[in-house]
Amino acid sequence: MDQERIKRLRRAMRAAKLDALVLRLPENLVMAFGVWPLNGFTHGLFTAADGPVLLIAPSCENEEMGGAWARATEWFMWPRLGMGDPRAAIHQALSKAARNGRLTRGRIGYEGSFEAVAPAHNAGEVLVPCEGSIAWLKSIVPSARWIDATDLIHAQRALKTEGEIERLRLAHRVADLGLKRFHQVVQPGASEADVAGAVYTECLARGTRLKSVRHVNVFPQVSSGPNAHRAWRPIVSTGKRRLRDGEMALLELAVCVDGFWADVTRVRVAGRPSTIQEAAFHAVVAAQKAAIDCMKAGVRASWPHEAATDVLRQAGFGEDVVHLTGHGIGFRYHEPEPFLMPGNAQRLKAGHVCSVEPGLYNRAWGGIRIEDNVVVRREGVEVLTHAPKRLT
Amino acid sequence: MDQERIKRLRRAMRAAKLDALVLRLPENLVMAFGVWPLNGFTHGLFTAADGPVLLIAPSCENEEMGGAWARATEWFMWPRLGMGDPRAAIHQALSKAARNGRLTRGRIGYEGSFEAVAPAHNAGEVLVPCEGSIAWLKSIVPSARWIDATDLIHAQRALKTEGEIERLRLAHRVADLGLKRFHQVVQPGASEADVAGAVYTECLARGTRLKSVRHVNVFPQVSSGPNAHRAWRPIVSTGKRRLRDGEMALLELAVCVDGFWADVTRVRVAGRPSTIQEAAFHAVVAAQKAAIDCMKAGVRASWPHEAATDVLRQAGFGEDVVHLTGHGIGFRYHEPEPFLMPGNAQRLKAGHVCSVEPGLYNRAWGGIRIEDNVVVRREGVEVLTHAPKRLT
Repeated sequence: MDQERIKRLRRAMRAAKLDALVLRLPENLVMAFGVWPLNGFTHGLFTAADGPVLLIAPSCENEEMGGAWARATEWFMWPRLGMGDPRAAIHQALSKAARNGRLTRGRIGYEGSFEAVAPAHNAGEVLVPCEGSIAWLKSIVPSARWIDATDLIHAQRALKTEGEIERLRLAHRVADLGLKRFHQVVQPGASEADVAGAVYTECLARGTRLKSVRHVNVFPQVSSGPNAHRAWRPIVSTGKRRLRDGEMALLELAVCVDGFWADVTRVRVAGRPSTIQEAAFHAVVAAQKAAIDCMKAGVRASWPHEAATDVLRQAGFGEDVVHLTGHGIGFRYHEPEPFLMPGNAQRLKAGHVCSVEPGLYNRAWGGIRIEDNVVVRREGVEVLTHAPKRLT
Repeated sequence: MDQERIKRLRRAMRAAKLDALVLRLPENLVMAFGVWPLNGFTHGLFTAADGPVLLIAPSCENEEMGGAWARATEWFMWPRLGMGDPRAAIHQALSKAARNGRLTRGRIGYEGSFEAVAPAHNAGEVLVPCEGSIAWLKSIVPSARWIDATDLIHAQRALKTEGEIERLRLAHRVADLGLKRFHQVVQPGASEADVAGAVYTECLARGTRLKSVRHVNVFPQVSSGPNAHRAWRPIVSTGKRRLRDGEMALLELAVCVDGFWADVTRVRVAGRPSTIQEAAFHAVVAAQKAAIDCMKAGVRASWPHEAATDVLRQAGFGEDVVHLTGHGIGFRYHEPEPFLMPGNAQRLKAGHVCSVEPGLYNRAWGGIRIEDNVVVRREGVEVLTHAPKRLT
């Protein structure tokens, strides 16, 4: 139960004259209720007024909802035979709550514009608020004024509380396990899929053994050799390709621990690196250091990108810089604040959490990116990623 | 290029008086355009009139879009520095296409009510049509009548073409690899996470070596011993728990191969099974056989469930039946047609693809489910899952 988050969220809601928020995206339930639901059926009613809040959850999630600070939880039977209509149960619980409060003539916020969404426990299918279900939601309390609260929620999420940062440290400990394993398994003859499998298994098997860890999701992407120069794309296909002596492997790794995300990258050469690989690697490491060194609350969000790019240019790699240097992270793989990119005049704030990920991509010798996540502090940053950076 | 799918979709659109569909969910682009985009920025304009259709895709997806039959593809730069606003590029391409056709005064279908969504290549983040982006989409051609085409699209997807069934066979060959590996690694001392990691690695490493396979996503969930009795839940947390002698492991496995899904389950006892485990296992296998044996086009969708449940009741396990017997599958982990469940008067049709997954769950001895996927044919079914069913 994160009192600081509850206080902040209620303050923001009062400033926006919102009487309540109806949340159902797992990533927002993590933020506001401290629970990460199994799927996307759980609805939370968070009120601006002090007092109990309401969770409406399927009966199969009773274990996962155990950590909720909501004093009132309504259960509906799902997914059992004879369960009736879960929607009818949610409708009933929400309309009952609305009758009891000041919500019938109030302003209620909802998740109208979450276009990028984090998966819940089972990443194979995601339940999201669609136009149809939002119309249905609004019909439950038709006399209220329904407000798309996406921007308020994102702004709220942009600055993490100390409690949330503690949870992020844990997610990054699990990600570190994967990065270290990556360095053990990259060698000539190993396939991209072999490497990804080893990283996945390590994060899951050793990560779930860490204290306070409940559920771990792992999303490794491995590209190799000539494929690595295309790893600037947000998504690569991990395939059957086997590393040859002297080829580069690039691991893009997302880990989600109980709703908190890490997004990290390492590279390694199988066998002996070439002169150009070594030069590019050291330039990227130095560029990341330059970016991190200039970060603290109050600095423009464009500065770390410029600092990193200057180093890369001076090392002769200016042509190989193709993407921005960082993005927000925490409740999702990518969050919209802060973007470390040219032209972004926003100032970094204490509590911002973001990636720092300079990269170089060149058809001739492959792709190199180093990505760590950091917490912006009043003076400097706290680096959440601790796995070593080395090319071999 | 699936001519049969294109013909069917155009016929359905004409019957619904739709002049065009704007699709962006990867699962619907797979169906209508035969391409599986990397993320969710690609938009497709599918017209009811014969002739070329339009894809609007980020430049980073040029490889993945190579298989598209769309003769017109507009590219926008993403996600590179200096890319401009991808939305502006999509807006421009769509409005240009609308000006050239009969769309400005026509009826255009969109994805308004997809509440359950399949991830694209990177399952760590999903891009979906939200209320905000749908309002934006409608504003591009404000003079058109915009129709929520979710039901039409789902109905279209419910009956697979022979070309799509061939792709599903391939996805199931990859899933079979995982099921076989499961049986090799379940033994006393192995943890749930160890087992899940081995299954993940096998599907990825050997699956990507199969001919015609491009990208494989794997979602294993393993529950063990006392946890297995709770595996009727749609999602379990694979954890650190180690199998003891005589305990049951249950694997729920989803595999996605280039946009086509398999959803399968096996169980295995680590060591020597008890009499009750053996009896329950054989009852479930017999129940599944009874369900499959009664399936063919024309049969009520409730019958397979009743046939399976009769067998389980007669074996003395009637109290341990808690969930339905099957759901649609193909373009997503779960599709809404056909549900094999009590009271469903819908008739099975040739081309339906669904799971057949009777299960028993009991606090005293664990959980047992066997899940295969089948194609409904005029006479009987084609079983897509070929991995053996055995308890030890």
